Amino acid sequence: MQQLAEGIKMKIQGMLTLSCLLAGSTAVMAKGIVYDAQFGVLEAQHGEKWQAQDKQIEAKLAEIREKNGGKRPNIIYMLVDDLSYGQMGNRKMNHVMGVNTENINQFANESLSLERMYTEPSCTPTRAAMMTGRHPIRSGSSEVKVTLVGEGLSKEEVTIAEVLSEAGYSTAHIGKWHQGDIEQSFPHNQGFDFAAFPAHQQVQLSLMTKEASKANNLFGWHDSMQNNDFIIDDTFRPKGMLTGLEAHKGQKAREVHMPAGHEWSQADYHAMNVRYQEQAIDQLQQLSKADKPFYLQYWPLYPLNFVHDNEQNVSRNGGYMAEKLQLLDTWFGEFLTELDALGIADNTLVILMADNGLMYHYGGPSGLSELIYRGGKTDFLEGGIRTDAYFRWPAAIPSNTAASDIIHVSDLYTTIATIAQATEYIPRDRVIDGINQTALLLEGEKNGRRDYVYVYQGPRLAAVVKDQFKMHMPAPGMPGAAAPVFNVYRDPREENPHIGMALWSGASFQDMMKRHMLTIEKYPHLPLGKGTPYSGVENLRPETKKLVADFMSWQK
Amino acid sequence: MQQLAEGIKMKIQGMLTLSCLLAGSTAVMAKGIVYDAQFGVLEAQHGEKWQAQDKQIEAKLAEIREKNGGKRPNIIYMLVDDLSYGQMGNRKMNHVMGVNTENINQFANESLSLERMYTEPSCTPTRAAMMTGRHPIRSGSSEVKVTLVGEGLSKEEVTIAEVLSEAGYSTAHIGKWHQGDIEQSFPHNQGFDFAAFPAHQQVQLSLMTKEASKANNLFGWHDSMQNNDFIIDDTFRPKGMLTGLEAHKGQKAREVHMPAGHEWSQADYHAMNVRYQEQAIDQLQQLSKADKPFYLQYWPLYPLNFVHDNEQNVSRNGGYMAEKLQLLDTWFGEFLTELDALGIADNTLVILMADNGLMYHYGGPSGLSELIYRGGKTDFLEGGIRTDAYFRWPAAIPSNTAASDIIHVSDLYTTIATIAQATEYIPRDRVIDGINQTALLLEGEKNGRRDYVYVYQGPRLAAVVKDQFKMHMPAPGMPGAAAPVFNVYRDPREENPHIGMALWSGASFQDMMKRHMLTIEKYPHLPLGKGTPYSGVENLRPETKKLVADFMSWQK
Repeated sequence: MQQLAEGIKMKIQGMLTLSCLLAGSTAVMAKGIVYDAQFGVLEAQHGEKWQAQDKQIEAKLAEIREKNGGKRPNIIYMLVDDLSYGQMGNRKMNHVMGVNTENINQFANESLSLERMYTEPSCTPTRAAMMTGRHPIRSGSSEVKVTLVGEGLSKEEVTIAEVLSEAGYSTAHIGKWHQGDIEQSFPHNQGFDFAAFPAHQQVQLSLMTKEASKANNLFGWHDSMQNNDFIIDDTFRPKGMLTGLEAHKGQKAREVHMPAGHEWSQADYHAMNVRYQEQAIDQLQQLSKADKPFYLQYWPLYPLNFVHDNEQNVSRNGGYMAEKLQLLDTWFGEFLTELDALGIADNTLVILMADNGLMYHYGGPSGLSELIYRGGKTDFLEGGIRTDAYFRWPAAIPSNTAASDIIHVSDLYTTIATIAQATEYIPRDRVIDGINQTALLLEGEKNGRRDYVYVYQGPRLAAVVKDQFKMHMPAPGMPGAAAPVFNVYRDPREENPHIGMALWSGASFQDMMKRHMLTIEKYPHLPLGKGTPYSGVENLRPETKKLVADFMSWQK
Repeated sequence: MQQLAEGIKMKIQGMLTLSCLLAGSTAVMAKGIVYDAQFGVLEAQHGEKWQAQDKQIEAKLAEIREKNGGKRPNIIYMLVDDLSYGQMGNRKMNHVMGVNTENINQFANESLSLERMYTEPSCTPTRAAMMTGRHPIRSGSSEVKVTLVGEGLSKEEVTIAEVLSEAGYSTAHIGKWHQGDIEQSFPHNQGFDFAAFPAHQQVQLSLMTKEASKANNLFGWHDSMQNNDFIIDDTFRPKGMLTGLEAHKGQKAREVHMPAGHEWSQADYHAMNVRYQEQAIDQLQQLSKADKPFYLQYWPLYPLNFVHDNEQNVSRNGGYMAEKLQLLDTWFGEFLTELDALGIADNTLVILMADNGLMYHYGGPSGLSELIYRGGKTDFLEGGIRTDAYFRWPAAIPSNTAASDIIHVSDLYTTIATIAQATEYIPRDRVIDGINQTALLLEGEKNGRRDYVYVYQGPRLAAVVKDQFKMHMPAPGMPGAAAPVFNVYRDPREENPHIGMALWSGASFQDMMKRHMLTIEKYPHLPLGKGTPYSGVENLRPETKKLVADFMSWQK
C-alpha cells in the first residue's frame, strides 16, 4: 500500500473528481475550515441537514449562556494515560478486573458515554491530535520520545488552548504533557496561562528509578543493578533529566522540588502525582472565581506506575498499575466533589477519557491486561485506539446516555471551539481533521458526523476504519486486494480477517486512501519544532546542563 | 494429573485427615446434606458464623412469606443458550457488539448481578448440574449428545423440580431440555407437572436443515447439497428424528406440530421458538392463578440459530445469532411485562443467565464472538464457563447491585430449595455440590459461601478455580508442578501462565484435587440412565420408528 500511496501522489493532478470533493469540503458547513477530503463525501450527503441542525444548536447554546448570565461553559478535560476500553467507568468490567472505580462509574452514569472514541495509539500523538485538531502526522508529532530529543510541538501549530485564549478563556494545564523538550513546545508557550508538567513522561519518572530496577521492571539502566566494568560510554544511559516544571505564559519555566544532586525516586514520583492532584484542585478553585470562563486540562500521570509503593494494596487485583487506577478514581471523586462545592458543575463540561490502550507490555504484574479489544498502546488494533470517553455537562447533555457514533480525539478541538464560540480562531491555512461533534454531544446518538478514522501507527498509515469495517494495510509489497477487512461488531478482537466476504469494500477503501493522500498532497505536513533541549528553563541543575551539553555536542 | 488421580485413589484409605474433613462437611450446617470435602474446609472456618446468619435469613424469609399471606415465592428460571459473559445485560457491551438487549439491560439494573457465575462448559452438563445440584460427572451427564443415544438423566437423580414438587410447588418446563432421549429422562418424568420441549437440541433443529446447508453452515448431511452416488449407508445420516414433545406428569409424551413425512425446516424451528415463548407466557398466566407457588423453567432455543430468516435484520451486527439475541430480548421484555401485569412480580424470584459461553465455532457469521474471556462452549477456559447471571426478587433482593463472589450453577439447586423451604427433600445419600447461596442473594456481596470450582470438560477434570487463581491441569504425563496457574483478575483471558510466581499454590491446588477425589471414592458416580430412544412417546412417525429400529438393531 506504500506503493499505492506513491502511485496516488503521481496521479493526483488529474483527479478532478476528488479535487471537487476536496473543494466541496470547505464550502458547505466548514465556514472556511479545511477538512480532509474524506469528510467532503459526508458533507455532500448531509451538509444541508447539518447546517439546519447547527442553527438549532447555536440557539440552544445561546439559551444556556443566557441562563448563565452570558457566560460560556467552563471546560475541564481529564485525560488518563494508557487505559483500554472498559477499564474505567463500568461496574461489570470492575468485577472482571478486581478493581473498583466507583467514582468514575458514577460519573459515567451522569454522562454521555461515547462508545466509539478513537484515539491515536500512543500518548504523544493522541495529545497532539487533541491539542491541534490534526492527525499528528500533519504536525510531525506522530512519534513517542522518552528521553532528550531537542524536538517538540511546533510554535506554528495553533492549539486548542491558543484558540480558547484568543476567545477569552482562562487556560491552565496540570500534569503529563509529553509534547517535546524544547521551549516552544512547552504548554505555557502553547496557549496556557499556567502550567505544571513534567518535561518528559512516566518511563523516566517511575521506571528509570532504582526502585523499578529492583522490582525487575527495568534492565541495565541503574548503576546499582549490575557490575558496570565494561561500560565505557557515559552518555548512553541518560542521567540528570529534567523532572517537574512550572511556568506562566510568557515567562521562563522553572524545575521544582528537585534539588541538584538528588536522585529521583519512586517517592518523588508519587509526590509529583499528589502535587498535580492538589494543583488541579487549586486551579479549579482559582479559575472558578474569575469572571472569564476557563479551560482546565488535568492529565494525570497515574495509573502508569511500575513499583508497588503501598504498605497494603487496596484492590483485589493488587497489580501496581491497577492500584493506581483505583487511587486515581478516588482523586477524581475528590476533584468532582470540589467542582460541586464550587457551585459551577451545572455549566461545566467535564470530559474524561484515556489517551490510548493499556501498556500491555507490563500485563500481568501491572494488573491491567487486555479486556475486550486486542492489543494496547502502540497498536493500530482497536485495543490500542479505543478508550472510554465520558462527557458530562448537566446544562446541556442528557445524563446516563450512550452513543455508538464514531468520534476521533481530534474532534474535541473543533467541538470545544464550537461550544466556546471560538471557531473563528481555528486556522484556515492547514488541514483540520477534527470534526465538529457538538450535535452528537447535545442531540445524542445518531447525530455523529464522522464514520471513518485514518489510523496511524507512528508515521505509518496502518488501518482505515469505516463504519463497522476496518481495513488493515497489507504487508509491504502485497496488493491492495490482499488487505484484510474486519467487522468490528462481529469480531471485536480483529482475529478473523475477511477478504472474500468483504470484497465489495476493496475499491471503496482504496478511494478513502486516495482522498486522504490527495489532501496531504494539497496541504503538506508541517515539520516538528526543533531546538535545544530544555531551552527556556531558568534553573537547570549541573547534571542536567551536562546532559544537554553531551546531547548538543554531536548535533552540530 | 490423571496419574495423580489414580495415585490418590490408591492411598485414600489411609488419609485420615481428609476423611475427618469430609465427615466435618456433613456436620456443621449441612443438616445431613453431603458436600464435597472441599466445602468442609470452608465450613470449618466459617460454619458457626454461617449458622447464625442462616437463622437471620430464615427469619427474613418468614417475614416475606407473612407479607404474602404465607405464600412462598414463585421462582422463574430463564436459562439462555450459549452466551458468553457480557453478551446480555450490559449497555457498554451492546455497543461493542452492535446489538441492543435493552430489556435485559433494564432487568439487570433491577437485579443482583452475580459477576462470577460459573457453569459447566456445555448445555447438557450445565442443565444437569442445575437440575441435580451435582457436577454432571456424578450423574453420568457430562457429555453433550446430538442425535439418538438411548441415554439420559437417570430416574435415580432427584431434580430440583422433584424437590419443589414434593414441597408443594407447581412446576412447568418450557423449551430446551437436552437431558436425554429416553422416557425416564424427559422433564415430565423428572418432576415437572407440564413440559413442552424438543427431544434434542438446536443442531438438529436449526443446523440439520436444507436452509442451513444452503447457507453453508452444514456439510454433507442434506441429500440435496451434493451427488450422493457413493453413499451406501442409509443410517449414518440420521433422518426422522423426533422434534417437539409435550407431556403432563405421569402421562405419555406426544410429538406436536410435525406431520409424518414432513421435512423439518428453519421455518418450523422459528415456529417452535415462537410457540415456546407463547407457552411460557401461557404457563405464567395459568400458574399465577393457582394457590400454590410455582416453579417455571423457560429455557429458550434462541439465540442459537444458523440461518438468516429475517426479511430485514434489525441489529447493527446483523449476524444470524446476534439477530436472535435481540429478538429474545424483546420476548424477555414481553414475558416480564406479563409478570408485572399479573401482579406477582414483587414476590417472584426471576433468574436469568446463560448456560455456557458462546458457540464460538460459528464466530463471525453468527455475529457473536469472544468478548472478554477467551474460549467458549466446550472450553474449560473462563470464556466457556463464565456467564451473565441476574437475580431479581423485589421483595428480598436489593436492585442494581452486583457481587464478585463465586457461585456455581449447581448452587441454584440448594439455594432455590432453601428459598422454597424444601431442603428436606434434597437426597442425603449422594454428594450435592450445590452450596446454599441464599445469604449471597439476600445479603449481597461478600456473603458467598464458595471460593472454588472444579471445572470439568466432559468427563475430564480440566481446571480448578480457587478465589482469583485458576490451575489448568498439566498435559498427560507432566508433573503436577508443571501445571500453569492463572490470575483471573490480572489476566482474564488466561494467556499468561504463571508457574514460578504462583509456586506457593501448587500443593494447595493438589490438596484440593485430593479432597475432591476422596469424595468421589466415598460416593462413587452414578450411571446415566439407559433405554430405548424415544420410549414413552405415543405418536412416533413412521420415519422415526425406522430410525429407532436402525438404532436398536445393533444394540443387542
